[in-house]
Amino acid sequence: MALSEADFRWMERAVQLAQRGFPAPNPHVGAVVVAGDEPVGQGFHPYAGAPHAEVLALQQAGTLARGATLYVTLEPCCHFGRTPPCTRAILQAGVHRVVVAMRDPNPKVAGQGLRELQAAGVQVELLDEHDPRAQPTLTRLQQLNRAFLHYHQVGRPLITLKGAMSLDGKIATHTGDSKWITGERARHEAHKLRAEHGCVLVGVNTVLKDDPQLTARLRRVKHQPLRVVLDSRLRTPLTARITHTTDAPTLIFCTEPMPAHAAALQQQGVEVIALPPDAHQRVPVTGVVEHLARRGIIGVLVEGGGEVAASFLQAGLADQIAFFYAPMLIGGRDAPTVLEGEGVAKIASAWRAEPLTLKRLGSDWLVMATLTRPP
Amino acid sequence: MALSEADFRWMERAVQLAQRGFPAPNPHVGAVVVAGDEPVGQGFHPYAGAPHAEVLALQQAGTLARGATLYVTLEPCCHFGRTPPCTRAILQAGVHRVVVAMRDPNPKVAGQGLRELQAAGVQVELLDEHDPRAQPTLTRLQQLNRAFLHYHQVGRPLITLKGAMSLDGKIATHTGDSKWITGERARHEAHKLRAEHGCVLVGVNTVLKDDPQLTARLRRVKHQPLRVVLDSRLRTPLTARITHTTDAPTLIFCTEPMPAHAAALQQQGVEVIALPPDAHQRVPVTGVVEHLARRGIIGVLVEGGGEVAASFLQAGLADQIAFFYAPMLIGGRDAPTVLEGEGVAKIASAWRAEPLTLKRLGSDWLVMATLTRPP
Repeated sequence: MALSEADFRWMERAVQLAQRGFPAPNPHVGAVVVAGDEPVGQGFHPYAGAPHAEVLALQQAGTLARGATLYVTLEPCCHFGRTPPCTRAILQAGVHRVVVAMRDPNPKVAGQGLRELQAAGVQVELLDEHDPRAQPTLTRLQQLNRAFLHYHQVGRPLITLKGAMSLDGKIATHTGDSKWITGERARHEAHKLRAEHGCVLVGVNTVLKDDPQLTARLRRVKHQPLRVVLDSRLRTPLTARITHTTDAPTLIFCTEPMPAHAAALQQQGVEVIALPPDAHQRVPVTGVVEHLARRGIIGVLVEGGGEVAASFLQAGLADQIAFFYAPMLIGGRDAPTVLEGEGVAKIASAWRAEPLTLKRLGSDWLVMATLTRPP
Repeated sequence: MALSEADFRWMERAVQLAQRGFPAPNPHVGAVVVAGDEPVGQGFHPYAGAPHAEVLALQQAGTLARGATLYVTLEPCCHFGRTPPCTRAILQAGVHRVVVAMRDPNPKVAGQGLRELQAAGVQVELLDEHDPRAQPTLTRLQQLNRAFLHYHQVGRPLITLKGAMSLDGKIATHTGDSKWITGERARHEAHKLRAEHGCVLVGVNTVLKDDPQLTARLRRVKHQPLRVVLDSRLRTPLTARITHTTDAPTLIFCTEPMPAHAAALQQQGVEVIALPPDAHQRVPVTGVVEHLARRGIIGVLVEGGGEVAASFLQAGLADQIAFFYAPMLIGGRDAPTVLEGEGVAKIASAWRAEPLTLKRLGSDWLVMATLTRPP
């Protein structure tokens, strides 16, 4: 049966709901239960471990869900994860029709949820990606769940290089001062990116110079991102704020053999992993990404510095950029830039960053773009 | 007498006309002659030395100008420059009423043109800057003539730092490759900026590395910008394209005593000026700007490299930036950035670049902003 204009409007409402919450490593999902043209229940997935959107919407609808239509932005799950399967809740509620925006790419679901509902006699509709009316909804959901979708489609986390810089590309002055290049609103957006990715990563020099907390300081964040430090020789001091593991979990990668300092860090609750060093005697970024992928991390926000960013790019492990530009000039031939390393030799082999979106945040600008490996 | 809506509409037409042409060091001016609600003549000032906008519009109107209204974006001149005074042409044509958008800040005019017309019995109206209806027109004219206005208000040319860079602020790769970072449309805009400023300036390293022409390659440009090179030890080779003075005039600044190489350059038509060196044994930018001001240059487009840009900033002689960003990452700790020099030590003392305007040019972005000296 073809979808009506009303169907698209209700799905739009579900997408609005999906945008709330910070569910990493789970996807953003929103759901609305509609009985006789009235919304009788709505919900969104607020954080990993919390009830799913469908369940919350059905709970709110109560007995009104019987014979109603459920709009949900993602295929309902049919497996036991941290919560029981949603398909069971839908069948128990006696829903007559389920409209789904996207199939779940997670191999544990991947169409199985839809089939289960159909088999039980529920009328199931999936948005047709070729239907022009569906496109805006699907584009927004793809954007919203880009880390989740990337993880299940590519098999490793989405990796975003983040930088806060002056218009001339400097992330600090030549003396190392970097507080604050961007304003309040840009920093708030950076906290959202941290929560969205579920994992932030820096090099040990950033820890030594700036002593950052790397937490997502936002009201609605339930799970703090995993904080990862690349620290070949394990120089992270016991006094670094990142070692306060009551704030958020911390994982430090060093190189084999594991330095003696590890035990002291571990005693503070920091996880330390030693990997065989790469050709430059540094922590191998490929090994780091493989480890994080196995751990179920869906996104990594690489927060600096320029050498760490370059090593991800060089390894072909950078998917997008989130560059914040402040309306200032810092200058300095010795001031650090957002991307160091060796760099490309020819303009023709530069990494392409397109399509590019701009967002104004106070007097700063956020540029986000997808990266393509140079030829 | 109050201005009518029709007056503002005709003035708008005159502003549209003013935007054509590249009149540096003269201002952009547009003019429309209106008789009985019909435009009977229009004109704009195409290039320095050509007839002024008023004269062209009056010529087109012929005898229809008698008793008509003349709309002109700038106060008509009343002195003999490269052309006879426009006030005389207006009186001869028998115009009844003249509506003027802005007073001419040039001390040779500065209200005198308006007074002359009034004294001869012409009804003269000047747009009131406090009238909200006049504001859009005046803002656009101020923007259009920013170099001209700056020159007459501040007493020296408007100095714009131009750069074409990757999103990470690099203007070339570590091997020196810079062709091409930006695309066709951005480069076309850069040619317009050159013509607009009437003068472009580079350091000798840019000449040695890129061998640029620095001309404004646009159909409607009659006068090529003056090309200026800061070249303390006069290393510009006789084979450099910038020494082809049939393309455009070239002026090289070196330091005293004047190197022997000067004579050979002068024989090719290159002008060479030696100034006492600054504390770093380089050409003193203050002296350069003073010289260009005396010469009547209204704008200087500083096209690189990063050290030259920094020396203008450091000397407090940079008024705005025109930064072109291409959607690419170059990387490289040794790749040159758009702004080098020493740079500021503290973020609090960074140069502010506001307000900032963005313009999309193909897949590149042009950011223009006004600079404020750090505290």
